[in-house]
Amino acid sequence: MSTIQSSAMRATTTLSETTDDDGLATSVVRRTLLPSGLRIVTEQMAGVRSASIGVWVGVGSADEDETLHGCSHFLEHVLFKGTGTRSAMDISVALDAVGGEFNAFTAKEYTCFHARVLDVDLDLAVDVLGDMITDSTITAEDVEAERDVILDEIAMHDDDPDDVVHNLFAAQAYGEHTALGRPIAGTVESITALTRDQVAQFHRVHYRPATIVVSVAGNVEHDRVVELVEAAFARNGFLDRVESPVSRLGEGTLSPVHPGTATTRRPFEQVNLVLGMEGIARNDPRRFALSILSTALGGGTSSRLFQEVRERRGLAYSVYAFASHHADSGLVGVSVGCLPAKQDEVLVVVREQLALVARDGITAEELERGKGQLRGGLVLGLEDSGSRMARLGKSELVHDRLLTLDEVLAHIDGVSLEDVASVAAEIFSRPEVLAVVGPS
Amino acid sequence: MSTIQSSAMRATTTLSETTDDDGLATSVVRRTLLPSGLRIVTEQMAGVRSASIGVWVGVGSADEDETLHGCSHFLEHVLFKGTGTRSAMDISVALDAVGGEFNAFTAKEYTCFHARVLDVDLDLAVDVLGDMITDSTITAEDVEAERDVILDEIAMHDDDPDDVVHNLFAAQAYGEHTALGRPIAGTVESITALTRDQVAQFHRVHYRPATIVVSVAGNVEHDRVVELVEAAFARNGFLDRVESPVSRLGEGTLSPVHPGTATTRRPFEQVNLVLGMEGIARNDPRRFALSILSTALGGGTSSRLFQEVRERRGLAYSVYAFASHHADSGLVGVSVGCLPAKQDEVLVVVREQLALVARDGITAEELERGKGQLRGGLVLGLEDSGSRMARLGKSELVHDRLLTLDEVLAHIDGVSLEDVASVAAEIFSRPEVLAVVGPS
Repeated sequence: MSTIQSSAMRATTTLSETTDDDGLATSVVRRTLLPSGLRIVTEQMAGVRSASIGVWVGVGSADEDETLHGCSHFLEHVLFKGTGTRSAMDISVALDAVGGEFNAFTAKEYTCFHARVLDVDLDLAVDVLGDMITDSTITAEDVEAERDVILDEIAMHDDDPDDVVHNLFAAQAYGEHTALGRPIAGTVESITALTRDQVAQFHRVHYRPATIVVSVAGNVEHDRVVELVEAAFARNGFLDRVESPVSRLGEGTLSPVHPGTATTRRPFEQVNLVLGMEGIARNDPRRFALSILSTALGGGTSSRLFQEVRERRGLAYSVYAFASHHADSGLVGVSVGCLPAKQDEVLVVVREQLALVARDGITAEELERGKGQLRGGLVLGLEDSGSRMARLGKSELVHDRLLTLDEVLAHIDGVSLEDVASVAAEIFSRPEVLAVVGPS
Repeated sequence: MSTIQSSAMRATTTLSETTDDDGLATSVVRRTLLPSGLRIVTEQMAGVRSASIGVWVGVGSADEDETLHGCSHFLEHVLFKGTGTRSAMDISVALDAVGGEFNAFTAKEYTCFHARVLDVDLDLAVDVLGDMITDSTITAEDVEAERDVILDEIAMHDDDPDDVVHNLFAAQAYGEHTALGRPIAGTVESITALTRDQVAQFHRVHYRPATIVVSVAGNVEHDRVVELVEAAFARNGFLDRVESPVSRLGEGTLSPVHPGTATTRRPFEQVNLVLGMEGIARNDPRRFALSILSTALGGGTSSRLFQEVRERRGLAYSVYAFASHHADSGLVGVSVGCLPAKQDEVLVVVREQLALVARDGITAEELERGKGQLRGGLVLGLEDSGSRMARLGKSELVHDRLLTLDEVLAHIDGVSLEDVASVAAEIFSRPEVLAVVGPS
């Protein structure tokens, strides 16, 4: 089927080329848009023998109404169960035999199937992934077996205090009956109710070339990857339509965030707390200032929260700040686990620290340290083909455009003390969302 | 102080040199033994800009008697609290500012402090680590603050079903009053009872040049690393003694393993099970056959347990086999989390699969797949300076000698069906150790 894609119809662009000190090209990023709307982005890296591949599908739990709750994640599981020509065992054997890492995950706005293999095994990995996406059988029997596995996975998440408190925080912030407020894996009720036909229909509607980005990084050659993808995704005429690619850039209307406190009583030893407020959407230009703010507040052992909560007062082993982003919304917050007797003091200290940065921003020293920390983390991450692959796939699917690494570094370097102070003053003065999970 | 180490007294050897297809050296491993007994092993990697450094100290919870239970881990925490010239904040700032990853962990037989930084920041990382090891102040105040942090960490582990069941399995296998059977972090009682003087004394006794290996991998030059280590560890005359290095090779007498069942009732949603038996010690030559056996049994999605427990019957989301090794003992086992209603069926299936491989070994196809899986995993791991650093440090400290990667690959390739069948028949017919953590 791939023969109908004439190469004249493909649009291929070189997006960036990085040269190291010795004048050698160490990374080349190229993008091809197929007529069907499927996008292929590759980054050729010097000095590695591996390749990481991700198939990013622009669908997740945010696309589910209440009757379909958990369907994106259910489908992700079922696609491993077999295709027209491969059993579940064949799929497993193919990648286990070459030692590749092979997995998938479902988020609120996308689903990703990914593998890391030696470069010589890339053909196999692309073929298996294309087969799973385009020729899955989705039988009633497989749906039943996987339903039990997912119910067990939900029980496992339910035993994880960190998962419980973050799900509760999202439910309080967005409302437990909204798509963003519900847990990605679904509930016992919603998973029990989903039918084979709903899962298969969800696949037909949402797994289209126009919603898919294939990203590959490592010792790979772009034109060869395009050929492999065209062959692997051609099954069942999957690439035969002509469509424009669909990204998840949001509609510009922010989802409302509801302040308030939600508590769940669970017989854990620790109390787990998430205290936060509305943040910013994914493509908001203030995201670089927010990263530096979040780093200074609770992003390392030199951060204010680590120093005040753990080093000075010994109140908790784990404390950190986070910022999560969606197309049309975002949250910021602080996550802490502590002994029940320390809960009140922890909340006092965390609120004090948030109020302090809301009033005074951060210091020049913290700004420089935050920049160093983000810069170092980015550059260290470059040696890993998996993190380059993820950057490409996510950029193409959920960001307005792919920034080169130099552009990202320039954005970080460009953040001023005033930028951080202004985002801190705005966000940390917003009304509080608090989730508490613990024994009393 | 480092001037007393004349370079004529150092013993430096090149241990291996790997050449890729183009005839370029892609990795050189070198080792230097200082007169004080401190060992430095480096691996210079082509094509990376990072460096991973680990300080491996040959002490862990296996060295603690009952009154010192949790002391190795307590000490690991306290060493971050400050030195003669750096506060806890200074230590944090130093590595956060360059974006380095910086952490530590304590095991039963060793403690490791490690960092990953850009190559230009290696001097700083070595200096901070050397300072922490040799000039820590260990004040009473810091010990008190850290005691609370560790009590909270223990509560966190206590809320993690996986930690609870694996600790219970070790307690049943070795006895809860033995050093190998006790949890590494200690208990509320033991941590509450430890004094500042016990912690400081533990440091003096166990942190000696002869028990320390510094391993570094990445874009590094061996002689330069030796100079940096000699300078960073020279504080307080730390390197002034002359001693032979001490490794943890065991005494050849195996610690007894006690069969039986231990259960802990906890109000979790899932039941967590570990079913296993005595395995083999770390340097046992059968370890390569055992790896392949463990892989075929429960090491990937094509493994027997994954197929039988999850794919065919939908009994559990997570099921895997493991083999753990100590100098004088080892355990093998299967770990599963499932809904309480499935517990009996899970145990039937797992026991059936263990009995089958004990009787018939594995198939030729599983042998080849297992080899491919281990080989692929090893080669893919080579791109990461952190995993190379860990291989060097552990080999030097707990293995009888550093195998080159080609030697490891040759050992894996050399495993026969008979080797696997013989280790399976011996180990899986041993009496059962079972740990169960769940609601009833």
